[in-house]
Amino acid sequence: MSVEYAAQILEGSHRAAARLISWLEDEDERAYECMRQLYPHTGRAYVIGITGSPGAGKSTLTNGLARVIRQSGLRVGIVAVDPSSPFTGGALLGDRVRMNDLADDPDIFIRSMATRGFLGGMAKAAADVVKVLDALGKDVILIETVGVGQDEVDIVDVADTTCVVLVPGLGDAIQSMKAGIMEIADVFVINKADHAGADMLNAEVCARIEMDAHLRKREWSAPVNKTVAVESVGLDEMWLSIESHRKYLLESGKFYDNRRERTSREALRMIHGELFRVVREQLEQSGRLDAAVEKLMAKKLDPYTLMRDTVTEWLSSSQCKRRHDEDTQS
Amino acid sequence: MSVEYAAQILEGSHRAAARLISWLEDEDERAYECMRQLYPHTGRAYVIGITGSPGAGKSTLTNGLARVIRQSGLRVGIVAVDPSSPFTGGALLGDRVRMNDLADDPDIFIRSMATRGFLGGMAKAAADVVKVLDALGKDVILIETVGVGQDEVDIVDVADTTCVVLVPGLGDAIQSMKAGIMEIADVFVINKADHAGADMLNAEVCARIEMDAHLRKREWSAPVNKTVAVESVGLDEMWLSIESHRKYLLESGKFYDNRRERTSREALRMIHGELFRVVREQLEQSGRLDAAVEKLMAKKLDPYTLMRDTVTEWLSSSQCKRRHDEDTQS
Repeated sequence: MSVEYAAQILEGSHRAAARLISWLEDEDERAYECMRQLYPHTGRAYVIGITGSPGAGKSTLTNGLARVIRQSGLRVGIVAVDPSSPFTGGALLGDRVRMNDLADDPDIFIRSMATRGFLGGMAKAAADVVKVLDALGKDVILIETVGVGQDEVDIVDVADTTCVVLVPGLGDAIQSMKAGIMEIADVFVINKADHAGADMLNAEVCARIEMDAHLRKREWSAPVNKTVAVESVGLDEMWLSIESHRKYLLESGKFYDNRRERTSREALRMIHGELFRVVREQLEQSGRLDAAVEKLMAKKLDPYTLMRDTVTEWLSSSQCKRRHDEDTQS
Repeated sequence: MSVEYAAQILEGSHRAAARLISWLEDEDERAYECMRQLYPHTGRAYVIGITGSPGAGKSTLTNGLARVIRQSGLRVGIVAVDPSSPFTGGALLGDRVRMNDLADDPDIFIRSMATRGFLGGMAKAAADVVKVLDALGKDVILIETVGVGQDEVDIVDVADTTCVVLVPGLGDAIQSMKAGIMEIADVFVINKADHAGADMLNAEVCARIEMDAHLRKREWSAPVNKTVAVESVGLDEMWLSIESHRKYLLESGKFYDNRRERTSREALRMIHGELFRVVREQLEQSGRLDAAVEKLMAKKLDPYTLMRDTVTEWLSSSQCKRRHDEDTQS
């Protein structure tokens, strides 16, 4: 069945892609087999991250940019990652709301998803969906995420070009929170550029870019685009900025370096997640976790000793495994 | 040396506590020995989490609440967890800024810390610092954190009572983002209650609480407090609400249940974190990670197979260890 779905996705079936993404969200076992089969067909799509504060107009901007990209004949996939409660698991934006706008174009695939669990989170979810859309034959994938806290950084883990969207008048607290923005922005977008304060914000961002250029020797200086997404103003220029960045990445060799670095981080992250699943299962099913927690509560054991002892046990057994392997090989 | 510091912390030395927290932040080996010695002396302090959007006035509220609590003779510790860029590692609020306000009181200990890395994050950092302040003899520990994305949930992992701070006029996008708020709030605080829109926000929150009570049978219904923190208005009532919740937890038996659950999660988190650290180190130092990444980039291997194989190796080796144990025992 997974084989069938993989084949359908490679033929461009949106329906099969949607099914696979649901499996991924549910951590359905079938997803892994399917992803394994799709993996060799991934890596071709160009991935653009769009991040910024809530209320910055990212959805409208993303949809508008998708329309501009479609005009050059490229196929587009959109992933909207919504921060959501891990308790309720619900996304804020329904696919239906977003669909209305672009639903008439069969070459655009849109998916909203909620970042649920504690482990993996946005980065894992987005990385998986990007692969599905890539295998589906999309040329450009837009990932839209509310940039708050860690998510801001996580988007760097999936996007080739990261666009940071700012808007005038959101207040100092929100803007200054984004301490990591200078590091992750490949392209700045000042949306709602017709609002009061846009020029001041523009000047502020440009000054910071200049300051940053003095502090660090950088080959790429992030351009600042002004847009009014609701009126489709400035979107062509934004797309040109993204294309310039893409050209820079390819010519400098950074494109491959970045992807290699991301692949490495992704591999580690996946091992990290799976390790947790297995460790938890073993400790819980054996009753060892409960026994340890009793001792911790009674202060007869401390968590640091528990941690060291448990890991040392795994470590020495892993050396045992290697000895065993060497024995059988010799 | 760790022994000395542990003894000094148990005697109430703020200086020794500050040193230990720095060790924890730097992942200095000495921290663990010290924490091991302190652990039996922890679990006495009551932990209050204060979370809300940037700009909600949490720092002023936290400082004001600390003053109210001090009036009843209790010793107070404050931990301000700042979301910060893992690139720059810097916290937004310096200790000095906050110190000015409360520095004259030797029974208040204040510490700002940045949640740095991707792994562990706020929950681990806060859990460690809470233990230090607990061992230091603080009766009440206030943890202030910008509630965005996952952090909102993480605070539940350390706090006995979680206060969610809302303010009028921050816009729909920000308020509605907080989909998880109903689940984590033990006490609601509407700060800046003298601003326009406070009554509407109050009505909105009350309506949601009522709706929530219909949907789920809950024993505890979160009270809604109105405060004007800059004028110290409503802080006594906020403290009363927190005390009511504490009483409810103790009488219902939930206090112990919650702490047990948190201890269990913490143990898992620590074991997993350490195990991953070791696995990563081995994969990196042996060159196996690099070799795997090469194969991934060439699409000769997929990350799902890599993940399963790597974890299975550790898993089966752990079974090997058990077999070894059985062999030596028989």
